[in-house]
Amino acid sequence: MKAGLALHTDKYQINMMYAHWVNGSHETRAVFEAYFRKLPFGNGYAVFAGLERIVNYINQLQFSEEDIAYLAKQEEQYEPAFLEELRHFRFQGTIHAMKEGSLVFANEPLIRVEGRIMETQLVETAILNFMNFQTLIATKASRIRQVASGDTLLEFGTRRAQEADAAVWGARAAYISGFHATSNMLAGEQFGIPTKGTHAHSWVQTFHNEQEAFDIFARVMPDQVTLLVDTYDTLSSGVPNAIRTAKKLEAQGKRMNAIRLDSGDLAYLSIKARQMLDDAGLSYVKIVASNDLDENTILDLKAQGAKIDIWGVGTQLITAADQPALGGVYKLVEREVDGAMKATIKISANPEKVSTPGKKEVYRIISKGSGKAIADYICFPEESMPPEGGKLKLFNPLHPYMRKNVRDFQAVPMLTPIFDQGQLVYELPTLEEIREHHNGQLQQFWPEYLRKLNPEIYRINLSEQVWELKQRLIAEYMEELGQDQQDED
Amino acid sequence: MKAGLALHTDKYQINMMYAHWVNGSHETRAVFEAYFRKLPFGNGYAVFAGLERIVNYINQLQFSEEDIAYLAKQEEQYEPAFLEELRHFRFQGTIHAMKEGSLVFANEPLIRVEGRIMETQLVETAILNFMNFQTLIATKASRIRQVASGDTLLEFGTRRAQEADAAVWGARAAYISGFHATSNMLAGEQFGIPTKGTHAHSWVQTFHNEQEAFDIFARVMPDQVTLLVDTYDTLSSGVPNAIRTAKKLEAQGKRMNAIRLDSGDLAYLSIKARQMLDDAGLSYVKIVASNDLDENTILDLKAQGAKIDIWGVGTQLITAADQPALGGVYKLVEREVDGAMKATIKISANPEKVSTPGKKEVYRIISKGSGKAIADYICFPEESMPPEGGKLKLFNPLHPYMRKNVRDFQAVPMLTPIFDQGQLVYELPTLEEIREHHNGQLQQFWPEYLRKLNPEIYRINLSEQVWELKQRLIAEYMEELGQDQQDED
Repeated sequence: MKAGLALHTDKYQINMMYAHWVNGSHETRAVFEAYFRKLPFGNGYAVFAGLERIVNYINQLQFSEEDIAYLAKQEEQYEPAFLEELRHFRFQGTIHAMKEGSLVFANEPLIRVEGRIMETQLVETAILNFMNFQTLIATKASRIRQVASGDTLLEFGTRRAQEADAAVWGARAAYISGFHATSNMLAGEQFGIPTKGTHAHSWVQTFHNEQEAFDIFARVMPDQVTLLVDTYDTLSSGVPNAIRTAKKLEAQGKRMNAIRLDSGDLAYLSIKARQMLDDAGLSYVKIVASNDLDENTILDLKAQGAKIDIWGVGTQLITAADQPALGGVYKLVEREVDGAMKATIKISANPEKVSTPGKKEVYRIISKGSGKAIADYICFPEESMPPEGGKLKLFNPLHPYMRKNVRDFQAVPMLTPIFDQGQLVYELPTLEEIREHHNGQLQQFWPEYLRKLNPEIYRINLSEQVWELKQRLIAEYMEELGQDQQDED
Repeated sequence: MKAGLALHTDKYQINMMYAHWVNGSHETRAVFEAYFRKLPFGNGYAVFAGLERIVNYINQLQFSEEDIAYLAKQEEQYEPAFLEELRHFRFQGTIHAMKEGSLVFANEPLIRVEGRIMETQLVETAILNFMNFQTLIATKASRIRQVASGDTLLEFGTRRAQEADAAVWGARAAYISGFHATSNMLAGEQFGIPTKGTHAHSWVQTFHNEQEAFDIFARVMPDQVTLLVDTYDTLSSGVPNAIRTAKKLEAQGKRMNAIRLDSGDLAYLSIKARQMLDDAGLSYVKIVASNDLDENTILDLKAQGAKIDIWGVGTQLITAADQPALGGVYKLVEREVDGAMKATIKISANPEKVSTPGKKEVYRIISKGSGKAIADYICFPEESMPPEGGKLKLFNPLHPYMRKNVRDFQAVPMLTPIFDQGQLVYELPTLEEIREHHNGQLQQFWPEYLRKLNPEIYRINLSEQVWELKQRLIAEYMEELGQDQQDED
């Protein structure tokens, strides 16, 4: 059904490609940067994800004959020669991006796309779609992991996900941030994520009674027994029946894995169930809980002394229910004028929406003493970082007292080359490597930046050159506007 | 990459299939019903969607060799003969469902799946995933349409959607509920939805100045000119430049379509812009607004006298941001016992979560006098509806004073045969037919059921037989549980 994703774009991208083509400006060089303006969930950081999907998309990006035929029927009546141009279209641009699993922050470029205006424009929609969703879910998953400490976390959200891609790519994003497994088998197949599953209430309902249902399940999969104990009544029926089944397994030299609680007061039920299991000599049987969990309910349950070892997290994670969209944007920062690249700015009545002009790099400034991150530093590619032993000035122009000189630091470039003039130059890491990278990233930050509530704000600093260019372009624009307004009067 | 969706399911479905297979019970007959327990957004109704996707899924449902190889590596160590069974697996069950575009309500079966336990279990996850998301978005879109009156509604959410499927199927769901077009070209190609697009800020930034950008766009697509006027300053720069471009178009005998506002105070800006356009003799130029709109902001803007003709709705619609998941469930209502079908119930400590046992039909009771819907009536298939002129007793067992006899009504069966023993017996309607059906559905309801805030609650009634069976099974279960508890003592 879905041959390709070339048309997974907004119509205005095609219209702008066409308009540039008719105007002869479609090969004008342009640089776009993708970033978000505000961290989601009040979190102190986001976890970048979506790059593998973007790489696949760019690699396979071409218009099929079916796509061309569809475009030919649009009311804009694109000229046949333009459609012919699209028929041979391939992405020939250059892309830099954060690595998946990296901790990233607001107002820093996460993906930088350089190329002909027509290709850089076309890919905006899909890049944002993939980056926004996967980064959102990876960030939500990371929040949950912060409160779950060493407990096992299972992603169980498929039935409530926003369609199939969200379920599958969301499971991957959660795994990047430290979830241990997913229930989605397609995610398991495509990405090698461990999969976990127990049984449903319907399993119990299919048999004459709960005991029979438990015993049969245990007989069939004696090494993988997790029993759902709330089909009828958790403490009066489910747990006692599960204990009887566990004893029968013991008689065969087997150990039951766990019981699962899926309704009711999880704190009370888990404490009672733990006691019943322990009293029966089944202290090795773990307790899985599920039922609309998120980082807040998990933290509360832990505070109430809930005896839960494994958390199955569904709806709240897979939809990022408390903020279901990351507002990532993709802004033009440079374009070719008379053969040279020139920085450009987007003004807005909302100051936080004014874009930062010019093609930029991001460095993470790491203290050599502590090994911890001090700030991210955004500068132009031609700005060289201070040599070994030199000092770097971090200044916050809005709050001059926050000026700070850093010495004895390491400056880690964060934007990695992914495509170079259409050629993939990045070897996609394995998912396990991404998880390791993510763990390494977490270790680079002091805990106060990582906490769920009221985290310390991590510094994102512009170089003085970037800051000055931004101020100059705003001033130039205001002057021109003033001129226009006088013209109008 | 995605050959098929057979593994787009939860692992526990495969585990239960396997456990039944080992137990020899995998061909036991079962009936499941999918429904939701609570209407989303506090709305008075939901708009059913997702059926076409489900039909495609069921039709194509088979395990590829790659899927089988993946399953063979699971830690459950499924027996080879089970994998062989899966290799030849096809869905052979029977499905009834609401038609897409139908108005539907809480606690009534929307999809009924009958067949072998193994096949009815396998399809649960994907059916819920598709039904939950598409019904959610169609319902959200319907709310927006209620406040937009006759205005044109455009779906603009792709970049903020939860991955690609959500963008594409969400655009279709919005179109079912009366949106007029989408920006997503893939949705346009796949479903024939009209597509609309203007240009981005980057178009303006690519040129020396806004006027040049506008003029070039108008020259290239003189019949499709909608100009985005807020790249620099809406009223000082954008609108005056757009007016000049419109005048140049007029000189060629062309008319500009619209201007688009995408930031700032849309009420104030639209009123001012309308005045400026009218003063310039451009009263035919429409005003498009976008920027985080939903049914509440649109209603507010209208109350403030905003002069907006066309609404571009993105994030809030495509993610259903105020409630990003519909909690649809899929419950076993009958299973085969000793060769006969027997009703089954799922008890819960939460009374609203107790399932309604038995395979059921849904009739919409329409007054012949007014042509309006009175209630939905849920009964067993073997219950015959009263003959022409007979009376139907609608009773609410929790509120006996709400007992009501209905005469002179039409009983419209709502569940339509889709698959009969694996064969598709339903001709999928066109999207235009679905939209017409949806409009017909809206007309069957008095406005008080349709309003956005505090809608009247539409009656969903169980037949006395269904009600009595439910009470009997609850009582039987409580007795059995009491017995067990005594046994424990």
